[in-house]
Amino acid sequence: MSGLDPAKKWFRCSDRERAAFEAGIKMGSVYHQYVGAPVNASNVEALERAIEAGVRVQPFVDDVRVRIDRSKIRAKRGAPYKYYSVTGDMLDVWVRVKYADAVAECAMAYVPELRYPLMRVVDLREG
Amino acid sequence: MSGLDPAKKWFRCSDRERAAFEAGIKMGSVYHQYVGAPVNASNVEALERAIEAGVRVQPFVDDVRVRIDRSKIRAKRGAPYKYYSVTGDMLDVWVRVKYADAVAECAMAYVPELRYPLMRVVDLREG
Amino acid sequence: MSGLDPAKKWFRCSDRERAAFEAGIKMGSVYHQYVGAPVNASNVEALERAIEAGVRVQPFVDDVRVRIDRSKIRAKRGAPYKYYSVTGDMLDVWVRVKYADAVAECAMAYVPELRYPLMRVVDLREG
Amino acid sequence: MSGLDPAKKWFRCSDRERAAFEAGIKMGSVYHQYVGAPVNASNVEALERAIEAGVRVQPFVDDVRVRIDRSKIRAKRGAPYKYYSVTGDMLDVWVRVKYADAVAECAMAYVPELRYPLMRVVDLREG
Repeated sequence: MSGLDPAKKWFRCSDRERAAFEAGIKMGSVYHQYVGAPVNASNVEALERAIEAGVRVQPFVDDVRVRIDRSKIRAKRGAPYKYYSVTGDMLDVWVRVKYADAVAECAMAYVPELRYPLMRVVDLREG
Repeated sequence: MSGLDPAKKWFRCSDRERAAFEAGIKMGSVYHQYVGAPVNASNVEALERAIEAGVRVQPFVDDVRVRIDRSKIRAKRGAPYKYYSVTGDMLDVWVRVKYADAVAECAMAYVPELRYPLMRVVDLREG
Repeated sequence: MSGLDPAKKWFRCSDRERAAFEAGIKMGSVYHQYVGAPVNASNVEALERAIEAGVRVQPFVDDVRVRIDRSKIRAKRGAPYKYYSVTGDMLDVWVRVKYADAVAECAMAYVPELRYPLMRVVDLREG
Repeated sequence: MSGLDPAKKWFRCSDRERAAFEAGIKMGSVYHQYVGAPVNASNVEALERAIEAGVRVQPFVDDVRVRIDRSKIRAKRGAPYKYYSVTGDMLDVWVRVKYADAVAECAMAYVPELRYPLMRVVDLREG
């Protein structure tokens, strides 16, 4: 794959570090593109699939899974204002990036201990 | 419908003007939520359907149609960088809002004469 | 001013309705552009001023005020994760739009009774 | 610094790889948060400073510089529609991230050869 990367010459890092960098880009892009989007039970699945499809078109993505926490978008009273905006703490995202022989798996999930939607590297290996 | 609007007391305008205001909100929200999203031929339809579904959960929306201009996301050379970000001039959006007896139809489309993705009221009527 | 609007011919509504529509666009754009942005005490004022400046460049805006609720971005423990993302319920926005002789004032603020960041028309008048 | 990172236990990578991951997050977040924002000569500097301030509140950021290409937001005719939306090819961003002894410098700039706003690691070192 890296033989096919016409941008490789502009990077000053190893393939593993590149995989980590690319993984970080995908995490940041999901969060900042879709936080704020309107969501309730009726469109949550279409939104999850669209976010996944949008990640897949980005460079070096091998696989992706997006889940929005249903417990946080439960039916609300007071129609017509019965929906939510996506927030970081609703998002459960997993992405696998491959760059040459390096494979980075990263994830985003809310960590109650930190009160923070943590983006992290869950695995980084060669081949 | 307006009998069902628990927020009506906070507005100082007619039902027609309210319909126009609500229509404007939806136009602004589509543009500023989804511009920047990654798109190419493989995910364009999932994205269009997700944008539509996201508009439908918002208040007073009766119908919506979103189309992303395929001629602007044509296959690009230079994998793996062969995708685009949604821009305003790709978006073709039509939304119908109903508030009480007022119906506002609005649209967004790129206007070459203005070099601008114009959001406009295409029809506003009572019942 | 409307004499100066080269797009007027594409609208099917009165000047008052147009002012309401334009006001709605600005509300939707502030919400969906800036929700998700990183914020804490150190950058909140720069962000408020930048949001205001971004509204001012949009068509027919006469005045704008943006305030992010400080009580919702209070110092957090657990450096380096001690910041927030902008959410709708932090935003307090007021915009005045003028279109020809019509003046629309609109506002966004969280309404506890609705548990919703309501965008509303607070005044709409001629001249 | 990594002694101060309460999240370190959830990562499976080296400090250098972590620095690369964090750098990627910041690149993705700038792009997807601010693309679409309204901009012209009157607010470009306030926006640049606000983007920089927003990056600085994120974890492990040591320094940042954001520049929006003035040649792409030149005065446009046809008031009141004389402004632009931020696009990726306008953005020139440089960020330095420090994680423990690892320092990652990354940048985003439009690369004509790729017709793509490339995010890249320009330097990655220890100490």
